[in-house]
Amino acid sequence: MVGTARIEHALADALALGEAAGCPPRLAMALRHAVFPGGARVRPRLCLAVAHACGDDRPAVSDAAAASIELLHCASLVHDDLPCFDDAAVRRGRPSVHKAFGERLAVLAGDALIVLAFQTLARGGVHAPERLPGLLAQVCQAVGAPSGIVAGQAWECEALIRLDEYQRAKTGSLFAGAAAVGAVAAGADPEGWRTVGERLGEAYQVADDIGDAAGDPQQLGKPVGRDAALGRPSAARELGLAGAVSKLKQLVADAIESIPPCRGGPELRALILQEASRLLPEELARRAA
Amino acid sequence: MVGTARIEHALADALALGEAAGCPPRLAMALRHAVFPGGARVRPRLCLAVAHACGDDRPAVSDAAAASIELLHCASLVHDDLPCFDDAAVRRGRPSVHKAFGERLAVLAGDALIVLAFQTLARGGVHAPERLPGLLAQVCQAVGAPSGIVAGQAWECEALIRLDEYQRAKTGSLFAGAAAVGAVAAGADPEGWRTVGERLGEAYQVADDIGDAAGDPQQLGKPVGRDAALGRPSAARELGLAGAVSKLKQLVADAIESIPPCRGGPELRALILQEASRLLPEELARRAA
Repeated sequence: MVGTARIEHALADALALGEAAGCPPRLAMALRHAVFPGGARVRPRLCLAVAHACGDDRPAVSDAAAASIELLHCASLVHDDLPCFDDAAVRRGRPSVHKAFGERLAVLAGDALIVLAFQTLARGGVHAPERLPGLLAQVCQAVGAPSGIVAGQAWECEALIRLDEYQRAKTGSLFAGAAAVGAVAAGADPEGWRTVGERLGEAYQVADDIGDAAGDPQQLGKPVGRDAALGRPSAARELGLAGAVSKLKQLVADAIESIPPCRGGPELRALILQEASRLLPEELARRAA
Repeated sequence: MVGTARIEHALADALALGEAAGCPPRLAMALRHAVFPGGARVRPRLCLAVAHACGDDRPAVSDAAAASIELLHCASLVHDDLPCFDDAAVRRGRPSVHKAFGERLAVLAGDALIVLAFQTLARGGVHAPERLPGLLAQVCQAVGAPSGIVAGQAWECEALIRLDEYQRAKTGSLFAGAAAVGAVAAGADPEGWRTVGERLGEAYQVADDIGDAAGDPQQLGKPVGRDAALGRPSAARELGLAGAVSKLKQLVADAIESIPPCRGGPELRALILQEASRLLPEELARRAA
């Protein structure tokens, strides 16, 4: 979407807070390893795109909101990769944090990134203090219990998984939060934007399931076949490749349909369509057709 | 100090946020297990005592601040008890969270408690929005990188430990934060209060070291001898029992000495002395004399 340079800059500013004088050197290295170089930065780009569509009258607040969402996403990846969860050795084509720095620093780096996200939000919030409570509320809802990404991951520890809650919380919630927090950062009402984010999050999860079921590990920069190996629900396994691709397209259409009235609506629609075309490797789209 | 009932009530309110509809049932149970029944609630009591000394003109804000400090303390205990750190099977006389619910839910419960702390602070902050940025800044400084409790724990992962930073960050920082956030919650300047909290935190750490080196595991509700077994620094091992007890008394005197001018100063002094007398089991104080 927009603002890759803004996002990297905002993340560098945030990391500088955590790495200040007195930080244990290996913790500082682990934090940096978890955040740079990044993945697609999909969530913070969604956040900035929504802020832009809503006028983006306080760019410092939007930047802080986008960075905080990405820091929380990075924290969740570091903890999800731990031996007790996915036991993933590779992330974004490099060793995962626990492989590079050990399990203890992976737990602590995740914790520190969560705190850093709130610190970043608070620091950005001084440019529009009246928006800070709303920003915090949206971010906490997206991440914590009862229905944020932590809760999504926790459904994997239940004997009876509520699939709808699991999928909505595990991926949808942070996308919903990214869109909502972008709106709040620009002084807009978040409610309608949550649906846009949720549909895009579901689309992203379906694309991820497709990649895991049928993708190329080299191209994805991570191992494939993990959903089947770990018995996790997967749209690709439930619907087949063609069915999953068709579901992905419907979700993107639903997201566009639910964009609330705003001055930057047409531009945002175009961005989402462009982004969606990159969600699925061409070769997989051909195989599904 | 003061306000045990206020603290338990504020914590129950906070937990209710996390346990709301849709929460994975075992995550909700793990959160409750981590917070109730509590330990001595030393940090939130310090927070409320400082707020009281500063006038406590917004009790709902002070309650939220105290609860958020205790939630962060509980989160750190859950993560510190993990197999990759202390591998503690027992906490507060009961199974640790990872023993009761497994390692995955212990990681997630810690994460969720951190988020819940900020959510609680944000919710309380609506009663004095102009204080919210200051509350967040103090809490983040106490917990995150570069010098909060997460950084303190991370010093244990370095080849060369900077002992002063380690001890200040590992225990002192959350006490400093508890005192500072109590002051901010009551509209006062936090700076002088950080020193009061730091000295009390050091005193508490010395008392903990003494308990670990010479205490009774049944009375303490946790195993002893862990510092020696894990090669952790310990005032009791460095100074001997009598030296450590004398250091503890000096730290309490320093804390009292550094109380900033405030309307409730004499009352706070009396409370700190009363609290300090409970830090050390009588039998140990006798052995040291």
